[in-house]
Amino acid sequence: MQKTRLEAFSDGVIAIIITIMVLEIKVPHGSEFADLQGLIPVFLSYMLSFIYLGIYWNNHHHILHTITRVNGQILWANLHLLFWLSLVPFATGWIGQNNLSASPMAFYGVILLLAAIAYFILQGVIIKNEGKQSILAKAVGMDWKGKASIILYVIGIVSCLYNTFLAGSLYILVALLWLIPDKRIEKVYKEMTDL
Amino acid sequence: MQKTRLEAFSDGVIAIIITIMVLEIKVPHGSEFADLQGLIPVFLSYMLSFIYLGIYWNNHHHILHTITRVNGQILWANLHLLFWLSLVPFATGWIGQNNLSASPMAFYGVILLLAAIAYFILQGVIIKNEGKQSILAKAVGMDWKGKASIILYVIGIVSCLYNTFLAGSLYILVALLWLIPDKRIEKVYKEMTDL
Amino acid sequence: MQKTRLEAFSDGVIAIIITIMVLEIKVPHGSEFADLQGLIPVFLSYMLSFIYLGIYWNNHHHILHTITRVNGQILWANLHLLFWLSLVPFATGWIGQNNLSASPMAFYGVILLLAAIAYFILQGVIIKNEGKQSILAKAVGMDWKGKASIILYVIGIVSCLYNTFLAGSLYILVALLWLIPDKRIEKVYKEMTDL
Amino acid sequence: MQKTRLEAFSDGVIAIIITIMVLEIKVPHGSEFADLQGLIPVFLSYMLSFIYLGIYWNNHHHILHTITRVNGQILWANLHLLFWLSLVPFATGWIGQNNLSASPMAFYGVILLLAAIAYFILQGVIIKNEGKQSILAKAVGMDWKGKASIILYVIGIVSCLYNTFLAGSLYILVALLWLIPDKRIEKVYKEMTDL
Repeated sequence: MQKTRLEAFSDGVIAIIITIMVLEIKVPHGSEFADLQGLIPVFLSYMLSFIYLGIYWNNHHHILHTITRVNGQILWANLHLLFWLSLVPFATGWIGQNNLSASPMAFYGVILLLAAIAYFILQGVIIKNEGKQSILAKAVGMDWKGKASIILYVIGIVSCLYNTFLAGSLYILVALLWLIPDKRIEKVYKEMTDL
Repeated sequence: MQKTRLEAFSDGVIAIIITIMVLEIKVPHGSEFADLQGLIPVFLSYMLSFIYLGIYWNNHHHILHTITRVNGQILWANLHLLFWLSLVPFATGWIGQNNLSASPMAFYGVILLLAAIAYFILQGVIIKNEGKQSILAKAVGMDWKGKASIILYVIGIVSCLYNTFLAGSLYILVALLWLIPDKRIEKVYKEMTDL
Repeated sequence: MQKTRLEAFSDGVIAIIITIMVLEIKVPHGSEFADLQGLIPVFLSYMLSFIYLGIYWNNHHHILHTITRVNGQILWANLHLLFWLSLVPFATGWIGQNNLSASPMAFYGVILLLAAIAYFILQGVIIKNEGKQSILAKAVGMDWKGKASIILYVIGIVSCLYNTFLAGSLYILVALLWLIPDKRIEKVYKEMTDL
Repeated sequence: MQKTRLEAFSDGVIAIIITIMVLEIKVPHGSEFADLQGLIPVFLSYMLSFIYLGIYWNNHHHILHTITRVNGQILWANLHLLFWLSLVPFATGWIGQNNLSASPMAFYGVILLLAAIAYFILQGVIIKNEGKQSILAKAVGMDWKGKASIILYVIGIVSCLYNTFLAGSLYILVALLWLIPDKRIEKVYKEMTDL
């Protein structure tokens, strides 16, 4: 039951983050379509962040699903992940208000990087608790996606010094990487259930 | 169980959208009833959006209820719908701050149209997954309401060029169309259960 | 199950209303305790609204609990109640920003009155659906509290023309009236279960 | 079931509080990293408040878990706790906007103190209802942590007159005190189940 409550709380926090982010899109004072033009970068960054949070919600669901018992370590590793995710609306708002300029783009990458690391830690803590033979341990395996994301974020952050367009493309690339459904956990789960 | 979590997450997001929308009604500085007068368009648009989100919550409940298994496609079609719904408070705020003028009214229609299309896609994805003989497939049938809404939204958006009052009336008409309880799904469900 | 979802959605909306209300308490620019002084009316109105929403949550829980089946009428009567409750943060913010002056105090009363009427309607719709012999019908009985509240709100609203202090006292009185735990439903429920 | 709803409502409110707090971190107008510098105190206070709310959520979970029946007293003692917690974002925002100056630091301590007292009362009400032989009564025992926190908060508040750095350190110390997992309840629970 404790697991259910952990899931419900995490879902609640992610649902709120994904929704209050829209409050960063400030209603323009003018009443013409031209007044919306200045909001295009805000809108694009909102869209990317929405997709990112959707991916986190989805994957988070998969790894929590494999837990058999919750302890303090898992609880705090989970809150640590939610902490960085909760800063996504702020980072998104800063990008949007500054026309995708360099520092906000780098900062956005840093928040995504820290969230990715927090996810990595959470995954590690769960595997440590559930054992090397657990569903999650087998499913994650080499976890090339997790590692690739971290490398791509770092390249993206550094590239902000030279080309924010490249940085943006890299952040989108990571999202696409994860949008491809992660069948690893489901597959291993099925195999273990079949035995 | 995955379905329950999908429902809970969607309900959470819709509950937050419907509630944070009230934050777009800015508290006036003056302390007289006359100071509220300027808020009448905000209030009216808030009321309409509240009803729209209530309708989406209700219908969304009905179609998710018929799902027997959740997959990545349904999950993302659902997030796609939530994305457009999450922009309703912004569109509502823009209308309200500009005294129901043309561009904001058209923009509001565009967001409603995109949400309607997203709902249409979600419905299609579910039917594709559940099969032509599923409860939802039979219940939806011709789906004249869904199609009529899309046509009415398009007419409403175009009519903003000439008459925002007409546009507003069309948006209200679509809401009324859906407020009439949709007994189709319940009816077909009952018939299939009786067999 | 549909009832569970109705409860969860309503709880979600009330939880969000009760919490976003705090966003109306704007952080002062100064850094002295004296800068908080101007916030005392905001704080007091926040406290009263918090108690009101707590009462609604509690009583709402009791009446939904007695429902055996949900239909469109109940659903919309419930959304109607949530609509007026969602305006409580706005009304609270207006009172707070204007030092408890007359019009905002009257407006606050109007919102409370409309919420009370919506609650009354919801109760009626449920009783109509569940029958005169239902738990709720017996428990509510004469419903003197509901009726007294409506009368006290009306007196409070009118009294704003003469004395906002009296109005405030009447609103507090209604809250106290409901804070006294409502044992009616639980008692009748027990009696009917004992038979 | 009533207990489940109390848990869900409390979780919802805490999830919203922890998340809307991020709205107090206002997006800076400039687009350089230097523009974030002014936000460092906001960010630090946000981090501490996030940890505090995480601790409350965790411990709150433990004490509610031991309840066997909910009554009006527990319900209101719980809402009383949520009330003070709901003011944490405001207090956090005030600290952050004023560079950790004395009055906001003291005010933050006062809110934490009142939340701690509310928690203490909630605990007492539950023990009174469940009896001296209940799991919670045995687990809490002397409750040195609860008492130590209250004393440390008072010292912290007073020390703001002289040294806000000391006050901050004391608030962090209390958080660390609680971060150490509270194995008391789980332990006593296990012992009682083993009999």
